Amino acid sequence: MFRQSTDKRVAVFVAEGLEEIEGLTVVDLLFRAGIPCDTVSIVEDHGVTSSHQVRITCDRSIYDEGFSFDDYDMLVLPGGMPGTLNLGACEPLCGALKRFAAEGRQVAAICAAPTVLAKLGILEGRRATCFPGMEDALVEHGAKLTAGAVVVDGNVTTSRGMGTAIDFGLRIVGHYLGEEPARALAAKIVYRA
Amino acid sequence: MFRQSTDKRVAVFVAEGLEEIEGLTVVDLLFRAGIPCDTVSIVEDHGVTSSHQVRITCDRSIYDEGFSFDDYDMLVLPGGMPGTLNLGACEPLCGALKRFAAEGRQVAAICAAPTVLAKLGILEGRRATCFPGMEDALVEHGAKLTAGAVVVDGNVTTSRGMGTAIDFGLRIVGHYLGEEPARALAAKIVYRA
Repeated sequence: MFRQSTDKRVAVFVAEGLEEIEGLTVVDLLFRAGIPCDTVSIVEDHGVTSSHQVRITCDRSIYDEGFSFDDYDMLVLPGGMPGTLNLGACEPLCGALKRFAAEGRQVAAICAAPTVLAKLGILEGRRATCFPGMEDALVEHGAKLTAGAVVVDGNVTTSRGMGTAIDFGLRIVGHYLGEEPARALAAKIVYRA
Repeated sequence: MFRQSTDKRVAVFVAEGLEEIEGLTVVDLLFRAGIPCDTVSIVEDHGVTSSHQVRITCDRSIYDEGFSFDDYDMLVLPGGMPGTLNLGACEPLCGALKRFAAEGRQVAAICAAPTVLAKLGILEGRRATCFPGMEDALVEHGAKLTAGAVVVDGNVTTSRGMGTAIDFGLRIVGHYLGEEPARALAAKIVYRA
């Protein structure tokens, strides 16, 4: 059962070829924490197939009538290939990411997806992390590479891969509800017990 | 891209109200490892909604023409509520689980789902684990509660919750390919780095 704990809303953007665990772990943890969260397709079709051939149906599409990026407090990008390239090629999404970042609103990306933020200039001068082997794309665009499963610099959160997806999701829970509820949720799901 | 590494096939059973991360983490890791794996609905409809309102479309249903439990080398049960109750109420699945266990074939369950195995008598005299707070259902049916994120006793593997889903999936990878490929996969996904 969903017990709403905030009126803020989070969007997880879903592209063909996304890493489904990186996206859905955020959805799962936010649901448990009572933080409203939608899966949002970046094409008209709500049905999307992940990089591991899992077919999911999104709650919304950015092309749905009435859709607005401003319905959301935070924009979240899962990684995966070619999902990350598809996210980076989506002009409406990239425009919203740049605007959110510039306005001090929340943006988050994991695995390969921090490279999308980097190419938009969002990581310039910021501490950030990404999937091992993709760091050059961040450094090239002025990011300060930082160790850690999850790195927060102001309104921008980045993380490393499928194996850090729970840390990433818990950090987002912590952002909205504070560290103690995030720790309690980690214990509840038997994480690093 | 899927590079097949074994001719063995794994089924992840998907019920309404499943814990989607527990199920899909296994699917994801097995895909990465080249181990064939299907999501299998336990109702006629291939579309299923998780306990956190994620809608997924399964590869197969147990009611599809030509479906046979014997297509699989291992039967895997994710947890979640009411997903676990739905799995436990599915007679064809329960029959297959008992038969697999008795024949020394592979059976695995995580979170609440080890209680399904317990009630079928499969954990009698075996080392096992489950979601914290549900241990009584295991002990009542003769299981020897054992500490650990994942517990393997012969052909039966059990695990604790969403936070141990990667450990559970990696153990299944290790079963088919050996410990070294499982460790390499853990490193690749930046798990406990």
